[in-house]
Amino acid sequence: MREIYLDNSATTQVSEKTIEKAVELMRQKYGNPSSLHAKGLEAQNEVENARKIIAKTLNCDQTEIYFTSGGTEANNLAVFGAAKAMKKRGNKIVTTAIEHSSVYESLKELENSGFEVVYLKPDIFGMVTKEQFMEEIDENTILVTVMMVNNEVGSILPVDQIRECIDLKKSPALFHVDAVQAFGKMPINISKIKPDLLSLSSHKIHGPKGVGALFKSKSKRIYPRAFGGEQQDKVRPGTESAPLIAALGVAVSEIDIESNYKKVLELRNYLVKKLNGISEITLNSGPDSLPYIVNFSVENIKAETMLHFLASHNIYVSGGSACAKGKASRVLKKLGIPDERVTSSIRVSFSKYNSKEDIDALIEGLLDGIKSLVKIKE
Amino acid sequence: MREIYLDNSATTQVSEKTIEKAVELMRQKYGNPSSLHAKGLEAQNEVENARKIIAKTLNCDQTEIYFTSGGTEANNLAVFGAAKAMKKRGNKIVTTAIEHSSVYESLKELENSGFEVVYLKPDIFGMVTKEQFMEEIDENTILVTVMMVNNEVGSILPVDQIRECIDLKKSPALFHVDAVQAFGKMPINISKIKPDLLSLSSHKIHGPKGVGALFKSKSKRIYPRAFGGEQQDKVRPGTESAPLIAALGVAVSEIDIESNYKKVLELRNYLVKKLNGISEITLNSGPDSLPYIVNFSVENIKAETMLHFLASHNIYVSGGSACAKGKASRVLKKLGIPDERVTSSIRVSFSKYNSKEDIDALIEGLLDGIKSLVKIKE
Repeated sequence: MREIYLDNSATTQVSEKTIEKAVELMRQKYGNPSSLHAKGLEAQNEVENARKIIAKTLNCDQTEIYFTSGGTEANNLAVFGAAKAMKKRGNKIVTTAIEHSSVYESLKELENSGFEVVYLKPDIFGMVTKEQFMEEIDENTILVTVMMVNNEVGSILPVDQIRECIDLKKSPALFHVDAVQAFGKMPINISKIKPDLLSLSSHKIHGPKGVGALFKSKSKRIYPRAFGGEQQDKVRPGTESAPLIAALGVAVSEIDIESNYKKVLELRNYLVKKLNGISEITLNSGPDSLPYIVNFSVENIKAETMLHFLASHNIYVSGGSACAKGKASRVLKKLGIPDERVTSSIRVSFSKYNSKEDIDALIEGLLDGIKSLVKIKE
Repeated sequence: MREIYLDNSATTQVSEKTIEKAVELMRQKYGNPSSLHAKGLEAQNEVENARKIIAKTLNCDQTEIYFTSGGTEANNLAVFGAAKAMKKRGNKIVTTAIEHSSVYESLKELENSGFEVVYLKPDIFGMVTKEQFMEEIDENTILVTVMMVNNEVGSILPVDQIRECIDLKKSPALFHVDAVQAFGKMPINISKIKPDLLSLSSHKIHGPKGVGALFKSKSKRIYPRAFGGEQQDKVRPGTESAPLIAALGVAVSEIDIESNYKKVLELRNYLVKKLNGISEITLNSGPDSLPYIVNFSVENIKAETMLHFLASHNIYVSGGSACAKGKASRVLKKLGIPDERVTSSIRVSFSKYNSKEDIDALIEGLLDGIKSLVKIKE
């Protein structure tokens, strides 16, 4: 039976060219990028080439890209690294209430060590306004950390307006953008957004799991989180995973934002139209959200029950973030969505590999499920 | 021209079966191990299988293995995690002066935040005795961290005697073993060594770069270094790199310590005999060191000069640790080796793929180099 994979915000299938590159590095160019001989140099060249590709895509300098083990490490490094570097300048951090757990839990940890964290409240669709940031950012604020696209409902946050807030408020704050869900899906131009830090992950864009990157402005300093060798200017030491980094480079080079967006927008519109025709279903994603993510609730059917039902038909979706491993969504609660809709929420997330047939199969599965599954209230 | 790779302590060639497994995960089993559907489960099963293989090899419980992005992260997590968890019990840390930078630099960082670190002095061959540990470990000691095999000279440290010291001294110390260079090369039995924490890395044992593991005794608690999702009991959150983890599992399952050791011992003896016949060469590795590593100095020729000369003949060795990127070796200095020998030191490190022909080529290269290279004193 054909697999219908609609959980691309959890992770994506790795592209063939990306796999090929990882294999090339593992099989032939297996040197340690730090080794001084030719075998090291050929691996180092692959690392630098990937750095160049990413820098070009983001419109930043090659020296501003640091490789990490993934989005979580990039976000952790940005948040802790900024807080520790800036702690003499103030102790306030401004963020939203719907950040990914790798930012949210880091901030909770910083609260334990005396930082004051303001979690801006989103509207029902997961939007936070520039005005809300304006109200909170001040001269005592040392970090503003905001996701570009929310991973559960797809809301697009106003990251392109935050630099202006920081400047207007004469705040010393470093500005971090968690672009894990946005990267490769919408244009990200460092020279326009003007972040100091920006995180991305490979496995959300058809690259392998285990690698990500942090953009860090060369004019700003953060405190490292890892300690060891001389790699990556000691901002992130440890032997670089050259195979994964080179593979990430290929995955980035394969991105075609415009054509994928067009395709996925059509899929989203098709899905939403179908969902709107099912009376038991309520959309949680707003009309202005990124089309790659569609979140909705199925009346009286627990998310886990529905997703297992769909999985038994080889249709893969999720209930909230994969990282939460089935825990009720903190994010949806913060949107003010009623508990019964939170526990019955399903996230569909697209990639360029999806088709209308996938959606037809999903809708059929959902209708079957609604008919046959045991309802919460029964 | 054939490549003669003798830098296996820097990194190793990835085995074919290991590559195949990584590809299988990237191509087919690409789900997020945290996803609740079957696509997630098949990735999770691969992760658990790797955990099982490693646990069996180390003779510990499967739940005691945590995957990291490599040896550096495993060492960082052990050192910082232990220090933070134990800081109410004392502030002394006992270690050696020749630890890998991922332990050493972490300890330097802990010194900045008030911990007292005692760096035990090795002898000229990189040995530290049980008695030295006995003298320093006390009731105020909260961490003892020691490498099992030194990465530059191959000395074997008495990790199997340290638990006894800790117990005799009624110390609350957690005991961490950095087994990155030892794992796969000599037997490691958790129930005999009785560490609380033990680090290993994939790319030193023919697995891919970008993954490692930390054994943590289930009866001991450490403070996490990473904050995010629910993965790995929150000890090390972040989407697991299932392809690399599964590949590491294969690499571990392929290890044949005894037969490799026998082979490498022969190679070492063959090399040492040849080196002893060259009057310009002085051995830095001791007679009781692990045969996988042979460190020596070439009179009056800078290590970098010699290693580039050898590399031009497709012979790859290193000068000290790859992570140091050519900086003069801190470790050799600590052994009391004179500066001129430190700057001219070469490390040869073997794997099961090496042969006597490799050594013949190396010796020929060294003799050529000694004849033709510009001497330091000239």
